[in-house]
Amino acid sequence: MVDAARTLDSGKRQAASLQPLQDLAGADLKRVNALILEHMQSSVPLIPQVAEHIIAAGGKRLRPLLVLASARLVGVESDRPLGLAAAVEFIHTATLLHDDVVDESDLRRGRETAKALFGNQASVLVGDFLFSRAFQLMVADGSLAVLKLLAGTSATLAEGEVHQLMTAHDTETNETAYLDVIRAKTAVLFAASAQVGALIAERPEHEVEALRRYGEALGMAFQVVDDVLDYSQEAAGRGKALGDDFREGKLTLPVILAFEAGDEVEKSFWRRCLEQGEQNEGDLEQALALLHRHGALEQSKERARRFATEAHSALSLFPNDRVRDALLQAVDFTVERLY
Amino acid sequence: MVDAARTLDSGKRQAASLQPLQDLAGADLKRVNALILEHMQSSVPLIPQVAEHIIAAGGKRLRPLLVLASARLVGVESDRPLGLAAAVEFIHTATLLHDDVVDESDLRRGRETAKALFGNQASVLVGDFLFSRAFQLMVADGSLAVLKLLAGTSATLAEGEVHQLMTAHDTETNETAYLDVIRAKTAVLFAASAQVGALIAERPEHEVEALRRYGEALGMAFQVVDDVLDYSQEAAGRGKALGDDFREGKLTLPVILAFEAGDEVEKSFWRRCLEQGEQNEGDLEQALALLHRHGALEQSKERARRFATEAHSALSLFPNDRVRDALLQAVDFTVERLY
Repeated sequence: MVDAARTLDSGKRQAASLQPLQDLAGADLKRVNALILEHMQSSVPLIPQVAEHIIAAGGKRLRPLLVLASARLVGVESDRPLGLAAAVEFIHTATLLHDDVVDESDLRRGRETAKALFGNQASVLVGDFLFSRAFQLMVADGSLAVLKLLAGTSATLAEGEVHQLMTAHDTETNETAYLDVIRAKTAVLFAASAQVGALIAERPEHEVEALRRYGEALGMAFQVVDDVLDYSQEAAGRGKALGDDFREGKLTLPVILAFEAGDEVEKSFWRRCLEQGEQNEGDLEQALALLHRHGALEQSKERARRFATEAHSALSLFPNDRVRDALLQAVDFTVERLY
Repeated sequence: MVDAARTLDSGKRQAASLQPLQDLAGADLKRVNALILEHMQSSVPLIPQVAEHIIAAGGKRLRPLLVLASARLVGVESDRPLGLAAAVEFIHTATLLHDDVVDESDLRRGRETAKALFGNQASVLVGDFLFSRAFQLMVADGSLAVLKLLAGTSATLAEGEVHQLMTAHDTETNETAYLDVIRAKTAVLFAASAQVGALIAERPEHEVEALRRYGEALGMAFQVVDDVLDYSQEAAGRGKALGDDFREGKLTLPVILAFEAGDEVEKSFWRRCLEQGEQNEGDLEQALALLHRHGALEQSKERARRFATEAHSALSLFPNDRVRDALLQAVDFTVERLY
């Protein structure tokens, strides 16, 4: 199965685009966006203001797209996935609002954060509001299986964030701890998004599990690449800020690999910059030089490619059709993307 | 019905104690506490540490007691209310953790807040974790009616907090706006707690509605009295700090009434202290003197007593037994309490 996936994989890598997924689910995604807009309303005007700031900022809506396309893959024809796609996006948005409070970030993707514009207080409370709205949307759908999945997922997301908080600034963080953190804070929500359709269609357990594995592997690849792009000059020209993670002292995979491969002088450099948070002019350039010297960015991307192969493999039990192709191209896009 | 309630009311007011409620539900409450302890565990050690700090701090566990006793009132004999009582307490605890971030409070009831001890970040994330755990407990119970009620309640709680944020420091806040805020941020969770039992027992709509009215009126009375106690020297000797709301610039009912009754010099005083946040030595004493001069604390308590009468009235359709008596005495305790 793995070999088959690899073959499939290398055959598809050239195309690497989100377009097939967007072509497939774009019309539904518009309706999801309308639901998002409708359910973020409140008689308290500050709530839609803050929500709009972060939701309108957009992003790729990868999670709702996953909900929609994976529901198609298992033959769901109804509108039920629309509300659940909105619910997943609300959970994601709530965690972004709370993350910016936690990270003390004033910028996200080169744009002022809600926290910077509206303050910590509004960010915390509007996050809570959107989180509640997510559960209201799930209740309206009425699937206890989906409620169970996403309540558990939300608990894991919070655990992953706390775990990250505890390992932040600690240069002893190893690859295993890093992978545990990103699995909990990112990959579980991708995994849940991919499973929703199979749960409402009451598909057999092995299909639900295949979609979970697909979503999890895709989420792992996505986060590793995100952490690589933080140190990518090419990406910086496309709306991502260069070195945000470095300035915040985050121990991401590229840094973990460069730290492990570095000599004592280099280790001291990373400790000063990331553990003690003492950063001077030229430090980011020095960090980039060390990452390149040890091939840490390329090794990290190679790790992401292995997750992509796992994602491909997970879908091999489904028929080779347009929907599966779109889901697989989304994996390759995730790895090869520059933004 | 109102007259009958008033008579009942005045007959019971002397006793005013939480004891009957605790006698009735104390054994179950111990099992709820065990469930709380069990479900706040996590493989990430900081989570139970933070959760224990705020949950062990205790308080009166009024909301779980309400869930347990009102379930008894409608004849529920099963253990189902236990998990739901824990869920309600988790929602309450999550809002406390987030409130302390929002209020920038370092002390709660004379004790250091989780925020002061563990930081904003841990408080936000552990609040999210407990909120998710609340939904997991509800899903385990399996009542979509309860899930719907508490998802909607959580959204309203967040709206109430944002509304409070927007009216904070604004001396133009009137009694109506104040009552709207406390209904949303406090009374709805009391109302939900009182309804849970009737929902799982699938009692007729008029009983669910009576319990909602009881819980809401109790919650209104509770919050008004809480805001009075903030300016009570008697309460200050019993673990509550004197003047916390004043220092935080909160426009609570006593201040709203004193502001409205005050002359221009007094209004300037309130504006300086609460809107501009300029407070000097002796200002709290001056505030207390103005509150007493205008009878604002006594008028506020009178407002609370009117809510208490509504709570009594709401339960008049249930048989006059030990359970109803315990729920009514809890109302009177809420109004007459000093802590």
